[in-house]
Amino acid sequence: MADYIEPRVLKGFRDFLPAAEIARKNLVEKIEHYFRSYGFVPIDTPALEYAEILLGKGGGETEKQIYRFKDNGDRDVALRFDLTVPFARFLAEHRESLSFPFKRYHIAKVWRGENAQRGRYREFTQCDMDIIGSDSAAADFEILHMMAKTLPAISGGKVIIRLNHRGLFNRFLSRLGVLEFSVDILRAVDKLAKIGHEETLALLAQSVGSDKASQILDYIAIKGDFSQTLVAMTAASGPCDESDRLSLIYKYMEDANITDCVELDPSITRGLDYYTGVVFESFLAEMPEIGSICSGGRYDNLVGLYTADKKNALTGVGTSIGIDRLIAGIEALGRLQSKQSYSRTAIACTNVAFGGAYQALANKFREKEIPCEVFLEDEKLTRQFQLAEKKGLCWLIIPDEKDPLDGTLTLRNLSSRENREGLSFEQAVEVLEG
Amino acid sequence: MADYIEPRVLKGFRDFLPAAEIARKNLVEKIEHYFRSYGFVPIDTPALEYAEILLGKGGGETEKQIYRFKDNGDRDVALRFDLTVPFARFLAEHRESLSFPFKRYHIAKVWRGENAQRGRYREFTQCDMDIIGSDSAAADFEILHMMAKTLPAISGGKVIIRLNHRGLFNRFLSRLGVLEFSVDILRAVDKLAKIGHEETLALLAQSVGSDKASQILDYIAIKGDFSQTLVAMTAASGPCDESDRLSLIYKYMEDANITDCVELDPSITRGLDYYTGVVFESFLAEMPEIGSICSGGRYDNLVGLYTADKKNALTGVGTSIGIDRLIAGIEALGRLQSKQSYSRTAIACTNVAFGGAYQALANKFREKEIPCEVFLEDEKLTRQFQLAEKKGLCWLIIPDEKDPLDGTLTLRNLSSRENREGLSFEQAVEVLEG
Repeated sequence: MADYIEPRVLKGFRDFLPAAEIARKNLVEKIEHYFRSYGFVPIDTPALEYAEILLGKGGGETEKQIYRFKDNGDRDVALRFDLTVPFARFLAEHRESLSFPFKRYHIAKVWRGENAQRGRYREFTQCDMDIIGSDSAAADFEILHMMAKTLPAISGGKVIIRLNHRGLFNRFLSRLGVLEFSVDILRAVDKLAKIGHEETLALLAQSVGSDKASQILDYIAIKGDFSQTLVAMTAASGPCDESDRLSLIYKYMEDANITDCVELDPSITRGLDYYTGVVFESFLAEMPEIGSICSGGRYDNLVGLYTADKKNALTGVGTSIGIDRLIAGIEALGRLQSKQSYSRTAIACTNVAFGGAYQALANKFREKEIPCEVFLEDEKLTRQFQLAEKKGLCWLIIPDEKDPLDGTLTLRNLSSRENREGLSFEQAVEVLEG
Repeated sequence: MADYIEPRVLKGFRDFLPAAEIARKNLVEKIEHYFRSYGFVPIDTPALEYAEILLGKGGGETEKQIYRFKDNGDRDVALRFDLTVPFARFLAEHRESLSFPFKRYHIAKVWRGENAQRGRYREFTQCDMDIIGSDSAAADFEILHMMAKTLPAISGGKVIIRLNHRGLFNRFLSRLGVLEFSVDILRAVDKLAKIGHEETLALLAQSVGSDKASQILDYIAIKGDFSQTLVAMTAASGPCDESDRLSLIYKYMEDANITDCVELDPSITRGLDYYTGVVFESFLAEMPEIGSICSGGRYDNLVGLYTADKKNALTGVGTSIGIDRLIAGIEALGRLQSKQSYSRTAIACTNVAFGGAYQALANKFREKEIPCEVFLEDEKLTRQFQLAEKKGLCWLIIPDEKDPLDGTLTLRNLSSRENREGLSFEQAVEVLEG
């Protein structure tokens, strides 16, 4: 028997080593910066909840994937599998303490015990933002505007947002006399990109016959630019509040100059059944094949399941950024900022007696907002140069051997391997900031 | 039967509403800023691990508190109860990919099903930093220096760090001939602050008799300043590497000018049995009664349990900031920066047709690093003033009614309730930045 426990993580789980975790933190910090600039505020909820809370609207696929167990107090509990269900519970519980419209974001881990295929993890980060308590087109538009500004900035390339309106689609289905099959139709349409035209047609025909299946496939085709497609959609569904809303959103897009990154695409339905208004997905223009990096839509009443008050619905609109997929895309495009450390500079150690002075010197740089490490062992300088290069540092500071804190400094450039000698602290700061 | 599910969280768990979550994020972001400035890098590990990994060194109390269950694949899994055990597994697994000394931080949730008393939660955030692979006094000192600089800055008041050396204490126990009782002695001494002098004496006497119990109590008393206490400790244990190390750390403290916030306190032992070198706790000077806000120490071989390689130990030294306790302390001292939002400014809505122009205008402010919301409903301005005040905003921007994007702006000061009218965008930026 082995005298140790094999170090390993569960299948579908993973460690983040420093370079990967720094890249992920950089991305999340940029996203948070944008969210905050629009006035969105963060919340947090427990990872573990009563199973009945999390499964209330789930069942089926969700139930099979969820991590559910009895806790030490014999409570039926589960790990959250998304951030939407806990948010619905949160809204119902704290409604009186919040002011509406309530604009929140939540970036946190969720867990699903699904088959860990390529790129699918059992633990992953969700990044959600929602506006609750406003039914206005301006709220729909704010989410689109945030996506149009944020996604290109964080991915470094063009992003296409594909927009549709579930309510308008339902009006069309109603006119066609097939509204009762809407769940099956939506699922079939949602598979179009994956299974292709012919198979979707066959799938639709099973529910509504081949003639109406053709009409549905015709409806969901893009007819040209936003306006042309909207004209065709409105002709098929009849003029209504939903088509008016899309018109208004288009005017907003024109006024804010974001028309070039939003397409009206009647084939976008989103699989989830709680969407009732606008729905959208978004894609890296250079790499659409990895799928939507940010999706969402408008829903009627998120809190209904958790409140006795059935009259005062809380409508909302929101979106979710797929952090893992986005990072994979940015990395595949060669744009992932990868670094081993936040510091570019270290103080060399030439005499262990000066450990205190080295820290004091490093701290003078830190107080100038220059992150600065201190090497801890008095190894040969050539060895310290190697270590610094391995760590990806740009500069090694070699202090005066007699007076490390107040003497002159030598700065070793680790790329050019040249030294700049006899520098005052202020001169060193200038070099390091340059 | 109710037609809804009661919205509630599990006992010992909690939601964070925006003001609380913003306060927590502010604190964590400040801490991360300091960690990074010293060259510490982040990692992340799974929330869920094989139970044998997490319980390897635990058992006893840990086993009772842990959330442990069988997953859908019948694996024996558990939620992490600290960040140290997963870090040990991480080091053993990734040793070849890391460069040493390895300086990492990890801020993440952990779960313990313990009795949810006042201030004790079953889900809480741990915030650990460690230096692995250096046995130097400079590494011990770097942790102390980081604490001495960071803790006062983030708490806004004086912090006292209490330092001791477990190895030196063991030498004293060895000399006294009671080393075999060290576990019981350490536990008794660790309770001193809680149970008082008499009860500790009685507890110690049970193990080693009353005469030696008295000598132990005498040893753990502070004898004056750092040097005076060190002289007394060295006299009791005999001169040795451990007392030399404390002397060197004291010299470092003098050179870096942090002597006023570190006390040598031979009664600090830390309950955990893996510490072998320096140990430390730290307290808010104005509120020591809430207990240590940041504690840690040096340990010999963290990875031993997870590796067949018993020769190449990985020594380390680290510390852990108690985020929840620190926030409670800062709040009790009236210093918690509490705010409802990151934005101080919003654009009023006077015409829904201009939803796009309002976003475009808001974005011009965002691009100047001024977070700016957009009000989504065209309610009466007096109602919008109220909403803005309720949200804790400072300014409401009322755009020109004809040309919201390029016309002049009125800025409503929500404290003084005065308007500044006819401002250009640039003038408005100046006011908002002022």
